[in-house]
Amino acid sequence: MKLVTYEVDRRKDIGVVSKDEMWIFPLRAFGMEYKEMLEVIKGLTQSELDLLEHASGLDPYNSNVIGAAMMKEVRLLAPIRTPEQDIICLGLNYMEHAEESARFKKEDFDGKRPNAVYFSKRVNEAVDPYGEILSHSDIVDSLDYEAELGVIIGKDAKDVAPEQVKDHIFGYTIINDVSARNVQNAHKQWYFGKSLDGFTPMGPCIVTAGSITYPPELGIQSKVNGELRQDSNTRLMIFNIDHIVSELSKGMTLKAGTIISTGTPKGVGMGFEPPKFLVAGDEVECLIEGIGAIKNKVV
Amino acid sequence: MKLVTYEVDRRKDIGVVSKDEMWIFPLRAFGMEYKEMLEVIKGLTQSELDLLEHASGLDPYNSNVIGAAMMKEVRLLAPIRTPEQDIICLGLNYMEHAEESARFKKEDFDGKRPNAVYFSKRVNEAVDPYGEILSHSDIVDSLDYEAELGVIIGKDAKDVAPEQVKDHIFGYTIINDVSARNVQNAHKQWYFGKSLDGFTPMGPCIVTAGSITYPPELGIQSKVNGELRQDSNTRLMIFNIDHIVSELSKGMTLKAGTIISTGTPKGVGMGFEPPKFLVAGDEVECLIEGIGAIKNKVV
Repeated sequence: MKLVTYEVDRRKDIGVVSKDEMWIFPLRAFGMEYKEMLEVIKGLTQSELDLLEHASGLDPYNSNVIGAAMMKEVRLLAPIRTPEQDIICLGLNYMEHAEESARFKKEDFDGKRPNAVYFSKRVNEAVDPYGEILSHSDIVDSLDYEAELGVIIGKDAKDVAPEQVKDHIFGYTIINDVSARNVQNAHKQWYFGKSLDGFTPMGPCIVTAGSITYPPELGIQSKVNGELRQDSNTRLMIFNIDHIVSELSKGMTLKAGTIISTGTPKGVGMGFEPPKFLVAGDEVECLIEGIGAIKNKVV
Repeated sequence: MKLVTYEVDRRKDIGVVSKDEMWIFPLRAFGMEYKEMLEVIKGLTQSELDLLEHASGLDPYNSNVIGAAMMKEVRLLAPIRTPEQDIICLGLNYMEHAEESARFKKEDFDGKRPNAVYFSKRVNEAVDPYGEILSHSDIVDSLDYEAELGVIIGKDAKDVAPEQVKDHIFGYTIINDVSARNVQNAHKQWYFGKSLDGFTPMGPCIVTAGSITYPPELGIQSKVNGELRQDSNTRLMIFNIDHIVSELSKGMTLKAGTIISTGTPKGVGMGFEPPKFLVAGDEVECLIEGIGAIKNKVV
C-alpha cells in the first residue's frame, strides 16, 4: 500500500493510492483525521491499516469515496516534508561505492568495511518528488546525487534485537542524498555538505512495510538527463536494516518518525573519471522497484 | 537576564530568574502564556523581553508576582528538553584541544585548522542541569565530557553576513557534549558516538543575548569529582560565532530554535596520559562565567 502527502485545489492532504495507481483516496474519507504523515506514522492502528489496505482496492467509479482525486491532477509533496529530527544516513554501505569513493579521495581501499558509517543530514524542508534541487553554486563546485532506500521507523526502537527490527518499520521511501563533495570534504565531517537547503528530495510515497517482502531486495537506480548512472539492488547493502536499527538502538532510541537513509550504490558523479557532477538544468531521477521514482531538476 | 524551564509542585513552567538568583517568576505572571522555551525563543517580542528584564529586578516580597517560587524549591529542567532538530556541534574548535585530540588518535598535528568541523548530535531528550549521564557501559569503554558554550538562534538565519550574526542570537547556555570515544572513532563519522541517550546535559538557564557582551569572552571550565579538568575562555575559539553562523547560513537556513555547540577546550578525558575517562559514579560539572554551572552524575 502506498501512502502519499499531496496537494489538490490548494489543500494539503494525506491519502492512499489505489492499486491501479490512477487515484488517491484521502484518509479523511475513511474517518481518519490525520493532518500530517508523521501523525499517521505514529498513530495508525492495525485496523486502520487494514481498512486502508482494503480501500486501496476500491474502484472510485463504483464506490463512494468522498474526495477521491485523480493521480494526474494532484501535486505530490514529499511524504514527510519536515522531519522531526535530522535524517540518519549510512555512508559507504555498498562495496563498489566504497571503492569509487576511496578512489575519488585518492585513498587506499582494502575492501574491508568492518563498521557502519553513520552521519546525519539536516532537512529543513524535504524537496517534493518533482521539486527542485538547489545547486548553491556560490559555495558548491561538485554537486552529486545518491539514490537511497529510506526506512521509516514506526514504533520507538530501543535495544532492539536484529530479528525484531522488522516489527519497528513503518515503511519505505526513496531519498536522494544530494551531496556537495567539496563542502563535505573541506569540513572533515560530512554533515554540512549533506545538509544544505534543497538537498533532500523524497518520495513519491511511503510504501507500508507489509507490502514489501522483508528484507527488501529491490532494484535501485539513478539517471541523470536520462542516462543510467546507478543500477544496483538493495540486497547488496553491506550493513542491512536489521544490523543498522539494532546497532543504533543499543545506544540511541530511534523514535517513531525517524528516517534512516541506507546508503547509495556505485555510480555517483564522483565515481566517474573525470567526475560527472551535477550542474544547473540537469534532471536527476532516482528509482526503486516497488516504490516508484522521484525526478528533480537542479536549479 | 536568565530564563529557565523548571518544575514546581509537579507543574512545568517557564520563568525568569530574579537578579539576586533567589527567585523564579513564571512568565505567565506577566500575561505571557508560553508553554515551551522554544515558543519563547520564536515568539518573544522586544516589549515582552523588556518587561521580563524589568521583572527580573522585582522584589517578590514587595511586589505581587503571582506564582513566584524560591529557586531552592524548584527543580531546574534542561531549558530546551526536546530540540526540534539535532544540535549542530563544532569539532576541534580550540587549538590546544585539537592538539590533544590528535595525540590521542596518534595522528600528526600541524597546528593548522583551516576549516571548521561541523557534525551533529541527536538529542531525544536533553539531560536536566542536575540530571544523570548514562554510561552505556555495554557499548562504551571510553566515556568523555566536553564543556561547551551553546548558542541559541532566535531568528531564522539565511545568508547572514558576519557583522549581522549578533542580531540572530537569542541567548546562550552550557552544554556537555558527552562523547563515547570508541563509538565515535569506530564509525568514522562522529554522529553515533555523540548521540547516545543521556549524552546531552544542558542548562542551567538561557542567558539572553543582551546580557552578555558580544562576542562572548567567558571563562569556561569543567571539573570531575571536584578536580579541575578544563579551564579556558570562549574568546579562544578558533572559529568564532560570527564565522560559524555566517558560514553555515550560506548553505543551510538555521531556523529559530537551532542550537549550536561551539566546541570544547583542552582538558577532556582523552587528553590525559593515561586518559581519564568517566565511570559510573563520577560527577561532572561544567561551568561558564555569567551562565552558571551544570552538574551531572554518571550512572
